[in-house]
Amino acid sequence: LVGVGTELLLGQIANTNAQYISQELADAGVDVYFHVVVGDNLERVASTIATALDRSEVVVVTGGLGPTPDDLTREGVAAALGVALRRDDHLVGVIKRIFEGLGRVMPAENLKQADLPEGATPLEPEGTAPGLVLERDGKLLFALPGVPWEMKAMLGKFVLPALRDRAGESTLVTRQVLVMGLGESMTHEKIADIVAEQTNPTVAFLAGRGQVRVRITAKAETEREALELIHPVEQRIRERLGEAAVPGGRTTIAQALGDALRERGASAAVAESLTGGLIGAALTETDGASDFFLGSLVTYATAAKRDVAGIDEDVLDRNGPVSERAAGALAEAAAAHFGADMGLSATGVAGPTEQDGMPVGTVFVGAAYGGRTEVRHVRAYGDRDHIRQFAVTSTLDLGRRLLHRGP
Amino acid sequence: LVGVGTELLLGQIANTNAQYISQELADAGVDVYFHVVVGDNLERVASTIATALDRSEVVVVTGGLGPTPDDLTREGVAAALGVALRRDDHLVGVIKRIFEGLGRVMPAENLKQADLPEGATPLEPEGTAPGLVLERDGKLLFALPGVPWEMKAMLGKFVLPALRDRAGESTLVTRQVLVMGLGESMTHEKIADIVAEQTNPTVAFLAGRGQVRVRITAKAETEREALELIHPVEQRIRERLGEAAVPGGRTTIAQALGDALRERGASAAVAESLTGGLIGAALTETDGASDFFLGSLVTYATAAKRDVAGIDEDVLDRNGPVSERAAGALAEAAAAHFGADMGLSATGVAGPTEQDGMPVGTVFVGAAYGGRTEVRHVRAYGDRDHIRQFAVTSTLDLGRRLLHRGP
Repeated sequence: LVGVGTELLLGQIANTNAQYISQELADAGVDVYFHVVVGDNLERVASTIATALDRSEVVVVTGGLGPTPDDLTREGVAAALGVALRRDDHLVGVIKRIFEGLGRVMPAENLKQADLPEGATPLEPEGTAPGLVLERDGKLLFALPGVPWEMKAMLGKFVLPALRDRAGESTLVTRQVLVMGLGESMTHEKIADIVAEQTNPTVAFLAGRGQVRVRITAKAETEREALELIHPVEQRIRERLGEAAVPGGRTTIAQALGDALRERGASAAVAESLTGGLIGAALTETDGASDFFLGSLVTYATAAKRDVAGIDEDVLDRNGPVSERAAGALAEAAAAHFGADMGLSATGVAGPTEQDGMPVGTVFVGAAYGGRTEVRHVRAYGDRDHIRQFAVTSTLDLGRRLLHRGP
Repeated sequence: LVGVGTELLLGQIANTNAQYISQELADAGVDVYFHVVVGDNLERVASTIATALDRSEVVVVTGGLGPTPDDLTREGVAAALGVALRRDDHLVGVIKRIFEGLGRVMPAENLKQADLPEGATPLEPEGTAPGLVLERDGKLLFALPGVPWEMKAMLGKFVLPALRDRAGESTLVTRQVLVMGLGESMTHEKIADIVAEQTNPTVAFLAGRGQVRVRITAKAETEREALELIHPVEQRIRERLGEAAVPGGRTTIAQALGDALRERGASAAVAESLTGGLIGAALTETDGASDFFLGSLVTYATAAKRDVAGIDEDVLDRNGPVSERAAGALAEAAAAHFGADMGLSATGVAGPTEQDGMPVGTVFVGAAYGGRTEVRHVRAYGDRDHIRQFAVTSTLDLGRRLLHRGP
């Protein structure tokens, strides 16, 4: 995949086009080997496209098809192939009619959008930018506009059908196992032999923010056959990882806890401190959260833990606001204030400096459910953002484990 | 910039590391020519790094430095340079101590993170993955972990200082003007002539999530000279944009409001609904928030607005939980519950379906300060995530405007 545009190289936008196309191609069973981003420079666009055609069977270029002088993909494709650009009369008509339809006069510079490298076939525009496709030595090159909605529409209409035809019958399917509380290396150590012996499905790891995802990807002729290859491997992995493997196919612990609460018809509320509201925000990230989430008391100031959450002055004075006792009391207060079945809590030190004698990264998380209250002391590391995220996932995971054990 | 990881090629994550590094390098005056992403395949990692070193003076590799067998960046660098890997005793000690500090035994496979290509110097790990730097024929190659917070810390500590030294006498300085409530095209329309006439400094736009940032970038021999070029342009832009231009150099509205509260010695509390805790989370994102932030009532369920925030049954029944009246009452309740000088609120419909007869994207935000309560009805668009973020920035901006007008 080749992305063309200096705005990408300046970091003004992320290359989400490459992400989207990669997902679609993975679903279609096409292996993507490289993403390349190049700026609005003719020589570098041309050499990048030439290299891409050299090492891949299919090249998808996005961006650089607009009407301004810094839109150079058409010229770059022509230069890479050593062919000339020709103005396409049919496309001139198409573009003129688009502007007529908008009740506007076509600016003269838009005429260059009707230029095509020799041998290319135009792809009808979704906005005002036509795409193009050409075949060379049995290889396919597509050029699509960089505007995401135009790119997506053209990808679906022209690129994916052509590639499905080429790929024949095969499809890639991925299942993910969410692993909480083990870390990437420990997870790997427990299933290293399974990983090593697998070729189809393959097993890979994705780690970050207090959670690890194990990805099991199979290639087969149909989705059903792929899932049949995945199933026994997923079972073995889940058995090895035990309670650390979150049941179901969810990829975030917030979604997994939400599912578990929903299944039991149970409601949840939160009392949080260092996370500032992130636990409630995580639980409400996906829609349908009103099925189980009632609310959260964000008691950032110590006085708010007393005055708003009603935590005993005694607990706060003797144990401190960052303590096992405070975390337990906050979880219970959350459930009581909102009348929820489950109360969750987090208190700790996000940094950058220690607080009440506790070092940065000290976090206590709590969960109260069915008359039982559990508290975990977790040691988070990294920067403020990472410590807060770790506190969020640790809290939600404690809730998930307590819920699975039942009241 | 070379990103290593099959998860990128499968589209499971976007290459936000490349975006972040590109922004930082642009600020440092370094031109980025290519982004490349390659999967966890030794041959392709090695050839990509070799090509990158061939055509660039500086190569920054991210990812592939973890402990698992599919982490291949160390091997890829060694293969690209035709050198061997050597285990570094000092790094072995460093990694062991990290695990000791976490109270865990180092898994055997983490030892490979102490391997270095001959001639490389280790970069001390932020998490558990060390980075590396090496020089070859006057060119620099850095390898950083793929985990964003580790990458960011190492980039700031090692890469940027080294590149600033290389860039010699010229320096790029950027000042940003945060613009709230105008949108990108309206902002551009108001200052188009200033943008067009500028060459040094240049003026660019960055838009997203309810805020626009105008970036003014000057190149000069010293930072002071650059700031002298920027100052008059920034002044003209701020005059044109009026109250929409947030005073100070902050790049998020949460930071700007935090500064304004701190200056006045004023405290703030929140009562939020559709945002689920994101307003409190935004205010506590940077450290020092305890100077002004007391807490938040996340009243997601309608009953919680009554039982926890104490909103009149009457208001909820007659006006509905998503209404101007409810937003005003929530802002006042926030201030009252926490004893804060300022109360902020947001209530609305994040979607995907309408609620209480209100369409998706309907948002009411409120602020109470110095005896005055103001409410804004904002129409947010986009997906659930975008609507919630828009509600956050709209709430904080209303608070900022009310505060600036004084009690």
